[in-house]
Amino acid sequence: MLTLYYAPGTCALASHLALEYAGASYGAVRLDFKQQQQRSPEYLRVNPKGRVPALVTERGTLSENPAILLYIAQTFPAAQLAPLDDPFLLAKMNEFNSYLASTVHVNHAHKGRGYRWVDPQDTTAIEAMKKRVPQTMAESFALIEEQMFRGPWVLGERFSTSDLYLYTLARWLEGDEVDVKRFPKVADQMARLDAAPQVRKVLAAQQA
Amino acid sequence: MLTLYYAPGTCALASHLALEYAGASYGAVRLDFKQQQQRSPEYLRVNPKGRVPALVTERGTLSENPAILLYIAQTFPAAQLAPLDDPFLLAKMNEFNSYLASTVHVNHAHKGRGYRWVDPQDTTAIEAMKKRVPQTMAESFALIEEQMFRGPWVLGERFSTSDLYLYTLARWLEGDEVDVKRFPKVADQMARLDAAPQVRKVLAAQQA
Repeated sequence: MLTLYYAPGTCALASHLALEYAGASYGAVRLDFKQQQQRSPEYLRVNPKGRVPALVTERGTLSENPAILLYIAQTFPAAQLAPLDDPFLLAKMNEFNSYLASTVHVNHAHKGRGYRWVDPQDTTAIEAMKKRVPQTMAESFALIEEQMFRGPWVLGERFSTSDLYLYTLARWLEGDEVDVKRFPKVADQMARLDAAPQVRKVLAAQQA
Repeated sequence: MLTLYYAPGTCALASHLALEYAGASYGAVRLDFKQQQQRSPEYLRVNPKGRVPALVTERGTLSENPAILLYIAQTFPAAQLAPLDDPFLLAKMNEFNSYLASTVHVNHAHKGRGYRWVDPQDTTAIEAMKKRVPQTMAESFALIEEQMFRGPWVLGERFSTSDLYLYTLARWLEGDEVDVKRFPKVADQMARLDAAPQVRKVLAAQQA
């Protein structure tokens, strides 16, 4: 049995979707970020980072989307969520996921979590970071659209965890004041996933 | 034949070390960041991100350390740079590498690359970010020391790419005004790798 800890609106959606697409038997536990539940002593025993996603397995807890996504793909190979038979293409999947985690998510985080990187009292610097987010997010998605996204899925013909992860972060664009229509391939992929029954099921469960 | 693009002092050292530990046949091409060679049209054709590392293979170019490190480990399995036989432990390796890429490296980057996340003319905000780096780096390494590093290597008894990547970022601590001796397990691992012939060879080649 696998248990995923998540909060609505966060990047944990990527791992949640992967569990659903994998056909895994799993439980999902919602944390209330407004109540700072991710900082509670109980949760810090699960994930000392105080972040989501965290996936509790029989062997211990995993965190970080790129690691969880590959783990789910390897644990449920029949779902074909990663090109496990092709180390180069698998590396392209991991490269894409790593870019989302360490560049795109980080760009977005400067809107609501700027206090991580300056004195939390320095509201002027925090506001300066916030203002830049529409530009950095647009630049990242332009690079994705023009250089990385092969179509019809991120890796080309093969659907993978990268599609679920990209979908998750593309959902942040509107709030970051970036029109996804500027990126036709990403917008098309997003519309297809919006309509997918697995996606609708997970989003309904997160919002229930 | 594999070709690695790197610049001295950057995180590309992790991938460079992995190639050396793998016993790979590879070439290494140095970029001069002071001359902005990573932004040259020639290099942008290799890696449109304008960053290092980039590993050119017969199938195409790979970027992002976490992806390159697993690729090297899978391509040279005899070197045993990753627990390829154990998906959970492999996920712990990827989790650790992802944390280094998306949290620790990002913390460090706020010292010299703050212009990425605010108006590049806003020297006050950039200075505010810089000031915070010693604290964020110390907090990240405290979490590594207390919660992640199993010893004698990151994953426990098994040496892995996580050790090479951690070593690479631990070398930044002194410049970030953090004394590695505050983290005895990390300091001990660093001293062992400082003395390793593969590490000495790669560092000498990068500095030649």
